[in-house]
Amino acid sequence: MATVKLWTDEEVSTDPRVQAVFDDIRATRKSDFVNNFWRALANQPDLLERIWANLKTVMIAPGTLDPLTKELIYIAVSTINSCTYCAHSHTAAARAKGLTDQQYAEFLSVIGMASQTNALANAMQIPVDPEFSVR
Amino acid sequence: MATVKLWTDEEVSTDPRVQAVFDDIRATRKSDFVNNFWRALANQPDLLERIWANLKTVMIAPGTLDPLTKELIYIAVSTINSCTYCAHSHTAAARAKGLTDQQYAEFLSVIGMASQTNALANAMQIPVDPEFSVR
Amino acid sequence: MATVKLWTDEEVSTDPRVQAVFDDIRATRKSDFVNNFWRALANQPDLLERIWANLKTVMIAPGTLDPLTKELIYIAVSTINSCTYCAHSHTAAARAKGLTDQQYAEFLSVIGMASQTNALANAMQIPVDPEFSVR
Amino acid sequence: MATVKLWTDEEVSTDPRVQAVFDDIRATRKSDFVNNFWRALANQPDLLERIWANLKTVMIAPGTLDPLTKELIYIAVSTINSCTYCAHSHTAAARAKGLTDQQYAEFLSVIGMASQTNALANAMQIPVDPEFSVR
Amino acid sequence: MATVKLWTDEEVSTDPRVQAVFDDIRATRKSDFVNNFWRALANQPDLLERIWANLKTVMIAPGTLDPLTKELIYIAVSTINSCTYCAHSHTAAARAKGLTDQQYAEFLSVIGMASQTNALANAMQIPVDPEFSVR
Amino acid sequence: MATVKLWTDEEVSTDPRVQAVFDDIRATRKSDFVNNFWRALANQPDLLERIWANLKTVMIAPGTLDPLTKELIYIAVSTINSCTYCAHSHTAAARAKGLTDQQYAEFLSVIGMASQTNALANAMQIPVDPEFSVR
Repeated sequence: MATVKLWTDEEVSTDPRVQAVFDDIRATRKSDFVNNFWRALANQPDLLERIWANLKTVMIAPGTLDPLTKELIYIAVSTINSCTYCAHSHTAAARAKGLTDQQYAEFLSVIGMASQTNALANAMQIPVDPEFSVR
Repeated sequence: MATVKLWTDEEVSTDPRVQAVFDDIRATRKSDFVNNFWRALANQPDLLERIWANLKTVMIAPGTLDPLTKELIYIAVSTINSCTYCAHSHTAAARAKGLTDQQYAEFLSVIGMASQTNALANAMQIPVDPEFSVR
Repeated sequence: MATVKLWTDEEVSTDPRVQAVFDDIRATRKSDFVNNFWRALANQPDLLERIWANLKTVMIAPGTLDPLTKELIYIAVSTINSCTYCAHSHTAAARAKGLTDQQYAEFLSVIGMASQTNALANAMQIPVDPEFSVR
Repeated sequence: MATVKLWTDEEVSTDPRVQAVFDDIRATRKSDFVNNFWRALANQPDLLERIWANLKTVMIAPGTLDPLTKELIYIAVSTINSCTYCAHSHTAAARAKGLTDQQYAEFLSVIGMASQTNALANAMQIPVDPEFSVR
Repeated sequence: MATVKLWTDEEVSTDPRVQAVFDDIRATRKSDFVNNFWRALANQPDLLERIWANLKTVMIAPGTLDPLTKELIYIAVSTINSCTYCAHSHTAAARAKGLTDQQYAEFLSVIGMASQTNALANAMQIPVDPEFSVR
Repeated sequence: MATVKLWTDEEVSTDPRVQAVFDDIRATRKSDFVNNFWRALANQPDLLERIWANLKTVMIAPGTLDPLTKELIYIAVSTINSCTYCAHSHTAAARAKGLTDQQYAEFLSVIGMASQTNALANAMQIPVDPEFSVR
């Protein structure tokens, strides 16, 4: 169940702007599979174009963080935001980029540890040490 | 302002269990500075011991994720949990482990992008593609 | 699956306080359909009465914000709180109040943008400009 | 810094509805101190009346959960919602109701543990066991 | 759908460390039922051991908060973190520890009230009264 | 205290890309005041350009939602994400766009009500009515 229609490939073919984004997704990812996130965004072509353009810039263009590290950061955010869809899609993406079981186990340890200490620091409202400030 | 007292070094010296943890923090980090998080936890010696032991295991013991990657994941969780203290302390820790300005800029891009798509996926309640499930 | 029983109309008819709220829901909304939220709250008649009374005051009584604007604010909160049920029920309510596809597309753009900048401001812990304070 | 004005006692005295709520707060709590939450809500007399009425019903009227347990649940919610104001005010309220240091230490352990396992369950998207469903 | 495999009892029997934890879960809870949370954590034996050890210390070892109060705090955290799995499992646990319908109704009232006032305090950014600070 | 340096106008003038964005912010808003959010983002010129471009598209370009409605949605998201900076900056922006005290009071009522019912629906894990699904 979604709050919007998920566009089939046939429906996509009726809107040139949507079709162009779908073509670029397939070409960029070298895969025919286009996941539901884009099929939902197809209802909003402006947003679809903008989100896909930003995603290419942020997640796909080369930079100083490697692609797997970026996926792990993405999953961490998605987990804490309780995004069921995103936890699934980006964990699958991380595995496709080589995430090992051992790395995933360590990742889970870190997000569990961080969530625990976040709760403690927020409950006790611990004041920030001046040593942490940027000079 | 905190909801608990922050222990001074003098107060720490009155409780051998707390002192032992503080000694280990200083020895492990090779630094005399002990930040407020531990000075707040000193009110709960059981919890102090357990959290420090877990933190050493999760964040300091060697593994397959490098220390900087683990800090970035930690900051991502802390940001989304709106933990002021933890965002400050772990960003400082990441810089101490070599985080460059360019890496931090890319990190910020990723957490911004993830938060944006999390909101979209949660608003539209997009169903998870069966392709993402673990076989 | 829920953590409580969902009351059928037949069960509702056995408790006059619950029946009275259900009658008022139907009369106020001019519809026979009573959604699961109220069928779950029927287990707690005090809470059912209080929530329904508050909802009528906040969402239905006339005021200076129009009903559709209030629904959009409601969906925004529900999305960020990751409330699956509420995202579905209030998006349906907004559509019933005339939400167009274009308005929904703009709404999604705003909540995505806000979530993104929230993450950036929280990560960098940007201090509030004194210009924003109430005189 | 707040987004609204905090009403002084002198300003409160100019609005009979606000004055009536403040009088009732003081009488109910048997204390002359009225904290900033109510001084902020004074800008919205309807909301002030409704929130205070609900708070009396939920937190002060006798029930089957004792007042300290209710405060602990309140602090747990406030911590996870990252409400700085509420963490402070309700921890102070809990102490006024007899919260001991040992109880607070155990409370912190529970919210830390819960936050940790929440992150793990949300990351792995663990399916709910049918055994947990209400018959 | 989960992001990891859920271990069957047969698979558990192939790993002595996992088997030992499962044996202890069954012995401690005096029940043959082991829920999916542990079957998912079985993929990460280090984490499985650490989480189970911590859970026994925090939730099962005797202390000054009674077991039902601890479960209610746990559900409160899980609800605000939008953890579907944890809301289900810990509500079931609370019922097994004697939670009555009336207590659950009051619990729901408290978490609803807290969430409402959290939103108000965070929206208005109400400054913390100095009276709430720890001396 | 921030985790990054806040750029002064003098520092901005040393980087043409940053200067160009600041010039456009001033021209677009018809005001010389540039708030700290942009002074923090100046450390990441790529991100600064992208966020400002998106903000102009989403919040400033004309559409079917009026500017004040978009600000209210923005504040709602920022409140639930506990973004202190954003709650302040966007409430100030909403007032500049004509938000009245009565509208703000109704806005607060809606976000409080939504947060309350979100907590109830998430605690009870109420299943979505099939009536809410998109045909």
